Amino acid sequence: MTRFLLSLALMTSIGAAAAAPASGTYSEPADTSTVDTSGWASLSGPTRLSWASKNIHYRQRATPPQIACSDTTVNAWRGERLGLEALLISPEGCGPLRLSLSDLRQGNRTYRAPGSQASFMRYVTSTSWNACGYPPDTLPTFTVADMIDLPDATVAMQPATVRPIWLTVEVPDNLRPGAYTMTLTATDTKSGKEAGRLDLTINVSKHSLPAGPDQAFYLDLWQQPYSVSRYYGVKPWSDEHLKLMDPYMEKLARAGQKAVSVILFYEPWGEQSNDKFEPMVETYRRPDSTWRFDYTTFDRWVDYMDSHGINANLECFTMVPWQPTYRYRDEATGELRTLEARPGSESYNDLWSTFLTDFASHLRKRGLFDKTMIAMDERGLTDMLAAYRIAKTTVPDLKMSLAGSYHPELVDSLDCYTLIKGDFFPDDVIKRRRDKDRLTLMYTCCATPAPSQFSNSAPADGAYLPVYATATGHDGYLHWSYMNWTDNPLEDTRFHMFAPGDTYFIYPDGRSSLRYERMVEGIQMSEKIRLLREDMRRRCDIDGLQSLENALIPIRSGALNEWYPTSTVVDHLQQTIDELSRR
Amino acid sequence: MTRFLLSLALMTSIGAAAAAPASGTYSEPADTSTVDTSGWASLSGPTRLSWASKNIHYRQRATPPQIACSDTTVNAWRGERLGLEALLISPEGCGPLRLSLSDLRQGNRTYRAPGSQASFMRYVTSTSWNACGYPPDTLPTFTVADMIDLPDATVAMQPATVRPIWLTVEVPDNLRPGAYTMTLTATDTKSGKEAGRLDLTINVSKHSLPAGPDQAFYLDLWQQPYSVSRYYGVKPWSDEHLKLMDPYMEKLARAGQKAVSVILFYEPWGEQSNDKFEPMVETYRRPDSTWRFDYTTFDRWVDYMDSHGINANLECFTMVPWQPTYRYRDEATGELRTLEARPGSESYNDLWSTFLTDFASHLRKRGLFDKTMIAMDERGLTDMLAAYRIAKTTVPDLKMSLAGSYHPELVDSLDCYTLIKGDFFPDDVIKRRRDKDRLTLMYTCCATPAPSQFSNSAPADGAYLPVYATATGHDGYLHWSYMNWTDNPLEDTRFHMFAPGDTYFIYPDGRSSLRYERMVEGIQMSEKIRLLREDMRRRCDIDGLQSLENALIPIRSGALNEWYPTSTVVDHLQQTIDELSRR
Repeated sequence: MTRFLLSLALMTSIGAAAAAPASGTYSEPADTSTVDTSGWASLSGPTRLSWASKNIHYRQRATPPQIACSDTTVNAWRGERLGLEALLISPEGCGPLRLSLSDLRQGNRTYRAPGSQASFMRYVTSTSWNACGYPPDTLPTFTVADMIDLPDATVAMQPATVRPIWLTVEVPDNLRPGAYTMTLTATDTKSGKEAGRLDLTINVSKHSLPAGPDQAFYLDLWQQPYSVSRYYGVKPWSDEHLKLMDPYMEKLARAGQKAVSVILFYEPWGEQSNDKFEPMVETYRRPDSTWRFDYTTFDRWVDYMDSHGINANLECFTMVPWQPTYRYRDEATGELRTLEARPGSESYNDLWSTFLTDFASHLRKRGLFDKTMIAMDERGLTDMLAAYRIAKTTVPDLKMSLAGSYHPELVDSLDCYTLIKGDFFPDDVIKRRRDKDRLTLMYTCCATPAPSQFSNSAPADGAYLPVYATATGHDGYLHWSYMNWTDNPLEDTRFHMFAPGDTYFIYPDGRSSLRYERMVEGIQMSEKIRLLREDMRRRCDIDGLQSLENALIPIRSGALNEWYPTSTVVDHLQQTIDELSRR
Repeated sequence: MTRFLLSLALMTSIGAAAAAPASGTYSEPADTSTVDTSGWASLSGPTRLSWASKNIHYRQRATPPQIACSDTTVNAWRGERLGLEALLISPEGCGPLRLSLSDLRQGNRTYRAPGSQASFMRYVTSTSWNACGYPPDTLPTFTVADMIDLPDATVAMQPATVRPIWLTVEVPDNLRPGAYTMTLTATDTKSGKEAGRLDLTINVSKHSLPAGPDQAFYLDLWQQPYSVSRYYGVKPWSDEHLKLMDPYMEKLARAGQKAVSVILFYEPWGEQSNDKFEPMVETYRRPDSTWRFDYTTFDRWVDYMDSHGINANLECFTMVPWQPTYRYRDEATGELRTLEARPGSESYNDLWSTFLTDFASHLRKRGLFDKTMIAMDERGLTDMLAAYRIAKTTVPDLKMSLAGSYHPELVDSLDCYTLIKGDFFPDDVIKRRRDKDRLTLMYTCCATPAPSQFSNSAPADGAYLPVYATATGHDGYLHWSYMNWTDNPLEDTRFHMFAPGDTYFIYPDGRSSLRYERMVEGIQMSEKIRLLREDMRRRCDIDGLQSLENALIPIRSGALNEWYPTSTVVDHLQQTIDELSRR
């Protein structure tokens, strides 16, 4: 438990002093892979700083790119979270550097941009595994700069290494349209001397992006609160636990998360998460074999998420779990017991009809009924239809959701239906569902090798996926694991039978990731597409609409190859969006 | 010459009696290829008639399709030329049949539809050759029903054969929108009994297609008048010659032909045509070495084409011919001589500056200058630029055209520029050219294996190509040979180093072809796309526009394969156009 306690001690100092790397508990993994380092031999002189491409995974010890770009210009909407990448290239190494980011400037005036920050990116262990199942033991590892450290971190550089930097600019919503400048500075912490400086010009458009909770794009990353209580060694659902979760839920809300993941019964998914999912509803069986339910934790969780603006839906897992077993507490003995009950069986129907009646009553009292969906996991169609029947018989207007395969039997029943990327809803089905205000989402997981959201995925994949979901008519994007931390999440993204990084988007102590930031970029592009469409329809700007739809064709087609990767697709679309934003 | 005279004799009787097949001079080729005939063994009974697919080449002796469809419904615009295919299936053979087509009916009223007719399709010899160059001598032949006979023809059937029928309906432009019916009847000429009957319902839209000459789609099929004078043994440019050409030029105008092919000097293209191209301007050299030009034939030809409504442009061949030689008549001796003159040479500049000055003066007198374009053939860029320079120096506002490769040096100079299908003008170039009222066309030839306009091409290719040209931003379609007949064009479509059928679209005595009719279909689809776009833009029908543009995506992509052939693409687009026509 030592690690947890140390980490916890750190948490209390966040924002005031150096973050984990300075503590000694964190050791950034060295890259042990074989790369071409020959280019370093012809390089010398002090550490240099340049704008770099956020589409490239810069290997730490490989021959660095020949780049020297000290200013750059980007376009943004008001309310946008901009992401940029810079790169330190150090032929001879240097002592600890600290980053700082200026306010926005226009003429003689300055403007604060709260939430903006510059941070070192951190290398984490990954492999080339991009499938489901256990990778071979012999699979070599390498490191990628996926983690984005806290802004106060300082980083020294070894000779012949690079260090990427991530810059986040939260463009204030009330800024007047026009050009603003900003400066990023790297300072040697020992000498106090400037080690590098980059200028940035941001052309701020008249258009505005809504705040995360007000976005129409439906983001659903399933939450795993028990990773946090385990990692920091705090009691689940204590005040400390909730406070520790704040940075993750803030990021989740910023990205536009809509659904609260509610666990009804113990562990719906077997081995899928490093930490077991404890129920948020306590189920008791009385001596007379009747059921009783306690919603204390459920209420605490739902209220907590609501305080972060994540409250559009409660997604309750699950009427068809991986194992047909339901844990409950025997009221007489206080012991935990397990009921085995297959969908369609008498015991299943007894448990679920009792529970759903009680739950619906609780939800209605709390005004939550209309936003609650009972989830099913993808299992045999017979089981799913049996579950659906008992739910609808018991509480006819109860909403139901499924992330799974395409079943014609269910497309007109489910209130939220999510297909894996690569499967398709027919156009008329999507339209029919939208006309009835039903949600239609797309997900990726270990079964979608690329584009995907692994630590080894191409960086632009994160931006591509939400836009792809939008371009193909979906309402949003789902991923089963926002924060299912491994035992050593700061250093090693591998876990179990999944592709590395597939199990979490954010790192301990509130650290972001390249994947999270690129996903936000993609969601913002989706929002821009929606708002530009609305605006151009209102103005009957047919040429503009056509230009936008044409730019979406390569994305709708899904055609990607070595010469036409997600980065090219995303960059082209961004250009079109920028052009249309100026009309 | 016997054949020519017989054919000529026939021509005079067209419309009154049986056509060529009855004359004894025509012998429809038998199919000598190996096909599966086993299905005939289980068939017996009288000859049957069914609607069939115009996307299929029905082999004459192969096991016939199991079809029995006696009525069908199609959608049409007013002014549209509809094409449908039917099939006679004869297990036991039958005597000569004659076809007849009723007027249009609605309730108790009938309406004439002039130009509508039902005709037997005729098998012609083809091979699988779809490339440029001489096919191997051993390449097997087969027959395809590409030729559409004259409506008065009668055809008997051998046992175990099929016979396709082509139905053309010219929907009158003044018809009121609504549903009309028509009946096709096959009658045994000996017994006078009905051998088969098919019903057709046509839903006539409120929309109208313009007449051929008023279409915006730019069709340019180069004409070869000397095929006709040779085939019928008449003096070129005699009254007889012009009269004999009427049916071909009527069809050409009906399809929307815009350009008159004018031959300035003897034979621009070497071996490319079975019949030599004689000049339409007579060039004389006086004893003092100066030039004199006679425009008698030119004027006769241009006026003749104008009388058919083909008059938008005069396309004059060619400033850069295949061989750098120019034939002229020595005025002193009356002998024909040849001047060799490479572009850029003194003699070239002397000839062309003299000719163009004289020609421009003649064109201006006749009010034809603005519609005249001097054509170049694709040769070395140096030669083309030299030709362009002397033309523009001599007559600065003279228009120039080229069908060839993409040359950035020429895209902003040429008034008409045609690229082979598969090459592309950048979007901004197409737009720039259109803004300046320059024509941008696409062509196919022996170098475009599929889709193409050979007798062995998939029937839907003919409809696909014009729509593809439109969808990819071109103004129209060009083919180098509308009527370059072989020695035996009624029976054998092979010629020289070309793919079979590549050298002509229409057959002697005014017979149409499947390829011509499908091409007209495609041009009409292009016109519908243009008119629907205009109409929907006017009404700001954004969903309709989007639906249309979406339907064009598969065509713009050009992606075709065995499971996604041109017939599927064309049929899908037709469905969308039909839907949008009803809005």
